[in-house]
Amino acid sequence: MRMYDLIEKKKLGMELTTDEIRFMIDGFTDGSIPDYQMSAMTMAICFQGMSKRETVDLTLAMRDSGDVLDLSSIPGVKVDKHSTGGVGDKTSLALTPIIASLGVPVAKMSGRGLGHTGGTIDKLESFPGFTTALPEEIFFKNVREIGIALAGQTTNLAPADKKLYALRDVTATVDQMSLIASSIMSKKLASGSDAIVLDVKTGNGAFMKKYEDSVALAKEMVSIGTMAGKKTAAVITDMDQPLGNAVGNAIEVIEAVDTLKGEGPSDFKEVVFALGAQMLLFAGRADSCEEAVKLMQDSIDSGAALDKMAEFVRAQGGDASYVYDTSKFPKTKYSVEVKAACGGFVHRILAENIGIACMTLGGGRETKDSVIDLSVGIYLKKKNGDAVDTGDTLAVIYANDREKMDAAAEKVLHAYEIAAVPKEMLPVVREYIYE
Amino acid sequence: MRMYDLIEKKKLGMELTTDEIRFMIDGFTDGSIPDYQMSAMTMAICFQGMSKRETVDLTLAMRDSGDVLDLSSIPGVKVDKHSTGGVGDKTSLALTPIIASLGVPVAKMSGRGLGHTGGTIDKLESFPGFTTALPEEIFFKNVREIGIALAGQTTNLAPADKKLYALRDVTATVDQMSLIASSIMSKKLASGSDAIVLDVKTGNGAFMKKYEDSVALAKEMVSIGTMAGKKTAAVITDMDQPLGNAVGNAIEVIEAVDTLKGEGPSDFKEVVFALGAQMLLFAGRADSCEEAVKLMQDSIDSGAALDKMAEFVRAQGGDASYVYDTSKFPKTKYSVEVKAACGGFVHRILAENIGIACMTLGGGRETKDSVIDLSVGIYLKKKNGDAVDTGDTLAVIYANDREKMDAAAEKVLHAYEIAAVPKEMLPVVREYIYE
Repeated sequence: MRMYDLIEKKKLGMELTTDEIRFMIDGFTDGSIPDYQMSAMTMAICFQGMSKRETVDLTLAMRDSGDVLDLSSIPGVKVDKHSTGGVGDKTSLALTPIIASLGVPVAKMSGRGLGHTGGTIDKLESFPGFTTALPEEIFFKNVREIGIALAGQTTNLAPADKKLYALRDVTATVDQMSLIASSIMSKKLASGSDAIVLDVKTGNGAFMKKYEDSVALAKEMVSIGTMAGKKTAAVITDMDQPLGNAVGNAIEVIEAVDTLKGEGPSDFKEVVFALGAQMLLFAGRADSCEEAVKLMQDSIDSGAALDKMAEFVRAQGGDASYVYDTSKFPKTKYSVEVKAACGGFVHRILAENIGIACMTLGGGRETKDSVIDLSVGIYLKKKNGDAVDTGDTLAVIYANDREKMDAAAEKVLHAYEIAAVPKEMLPVVREYIYE
Repeated sequence: MRMYDLIEKKKLGMELTTDEIRFMIDGFTDGSIPDYQMSAMTMAICFQGMSKRETVDLTLAMRDSGDVLDLSSIPGVKVDKHSTGGVGDKTSLALTPIIASLGVPVAKMSGRGLGHTGGTIDKLESFPGFTTALPEEIFFKNVREIGIALAGQTTNLAPADKKLYALRDVTATVDQMSLIASSIMSKKLASGSDAIVLDVKTGNGAFMKKYEDSVALAKEMVSIGTMAGKKTAAVITDMDQPLGNAVGNAIEVIEAVDTLKGEGPSDFKEVVFALGAQMLLFAGRADSCEEAVKLMQDSIDSGAALDKMAEFVRAQGGDASYVYDTSKFPKTKYSVEVKAACGGFVHRILAENIGIACMTLGGGRETKDSVIDLSVGIYLKKKNGDAVDTGDTLAVIYANDREKMDAAAEKVLHAYEIAAVPKEMLPVVREYIYE
């Protein structure tokens, strides 16, 4: 078999066989197929697409390119959750303690943030001492004993995907649906869970800006997961503005903790409950969405979810007292209010620009090696649909550097789109996608 | 400027600017743009194409990536000739002495053969002592004094093209019209001639197998040459069978010499005269095709062309006595006649298979490092349109190894397509393409 012939075949619009895709990914992973052939292939795929069967084969070949975790020693149904990424997306922070508090094991791999979206690990490191560098035995022990553990992604999970994504990222071949779906799903399938719930964001701050693209990506991923033998569902949720009110690291942790205390923003709670209900259904912990929602609300009301979060933070070396007293999180030296220059109704908040503003403050990574400032952030006082008078506070910027603060305030002001007429609001949870 | 953006632009079907193309080729040549980005770009070009302007810009950028020869010290109009390559194509061997004998300077760069087509330099090395490794001053001196010199292509002529072709060759992106045309023309334009005559082959043994593709390539190249300020014309000639009767090295030289003696095959002479007439017109040596043909015929009849060939061979270190006595060329140990298994009329001779049969004998290169046997070859006794009886000799194989001979004979027999009805013959010179 020669990679040349496979490129030619795809260029002509023909389907690659299972063996051919396996040959391609194995060769690319071990270096026998060079980058320049793989990038020609991905560009050909951008034009000719891939069939469902090809996409599943690609996903499985990438999954098998490295370690595939075995979570079978953990009793119960392990359900993984994945978000396609958004601004202010602290869903995992609130969701995982709730799920764990209901007896469903959470054994999660997470990533760090890059660019305009934050990462779960970065946010959790706002707790002094918190670490995700857990030895494998501690990871498993924690899941078995307290029902929850979160680790940084090991380098050997779907290495083919890592290598392929890096190549696509520099050859303008990122935006192909089958390649996106197989990239996400190869890592999820390698993570060893029994079922997968996907949070597919849609809107200006999402990777998929058009609604139909978000649905297509969700369908593609659900189809892959199902064909790979895992229960898989997706929830399409709004990213036409940041999720919740807080954007940053510690500030988002506080919002997640507040949610576990029953005091979180309603849009955020809706997303948490929608994803959580799917997870509880897959885990067999609830028989209906209504039952699942009741269970989750009870866990919050009883304080069980909050206690689980404290337990989780403590088990991974963090100072759990912060969970009960969020005023302990470090404050920034400066803050400034961003005021509305005109009245009307908020129609859109360009989430990507808010994310970039946060990065400007030092709260996000411009490159992999950036050191981030966990205390800075942006708190949105007005959200889509809200009425605004001239001079009202739209948002508050928390900063440790005046220049950066001014630059961020400028960006935040321009991220708000305010119009004279009220905006018809769509629900934050748009649609459920099942096979 | 970032290569990423240029790939994205081309992927979306937009035109690249002159500066962008220059940036891309300069960066690719100096290594700052990696192969994997360039291969993604060429694949995108395969799908989106290039405008005429982009193609010219690409050609000029590649021309300027290395040395551009300056032939201005040679008096007269320098006309270059290029063939897209075929089997039995010894055109330059006969054409250049004829042109030089008529006072038009010939300063030619040539290549070696690879795969199923032979190279002019290999063929000329059948003359003992002949070399194309000429120091620059000798090359120019020979052109000035005897009107003809032929050198091997220096490594620094259009190095961008060399690098790009090597990349396209392993990424299934060779067959794109603009890329093919700019590749050929960048080298031709760097060779420093004042005018260019192109021999574009068409048919089963040609790079362009379909007639309309051959015409499209010819038009594209003529357009590039003209836009680059050079008089350029193309002649579309038949390659639905090998050109002439001889396929090999020494055996092709003998056929070329015979042609200069007025004894060559008619199809070969037709191609030589068609190209020669264009060269003489561009050089201002003739005012009409009729006049040009008469001049060439006179040069053959008077022996001037043959003498010029002897002078040329001698000036480059070769034994010119072989020109006057071709029986001096070494003979092979064995020969065998390939006989027709059935009667009828020859419809096609798969030229590529004849070329491969010759390579099997050792007469061509499978890899760049192959050492070739100059004495072996195939002589076609029957050509397209000829009537054949069962048992007639179709071709004679000349070999130095019995096993290779048998393998080649088998291939040659299968290369002949014989049918019961006569074939309507198309002329060997099909069409002239001007801007």
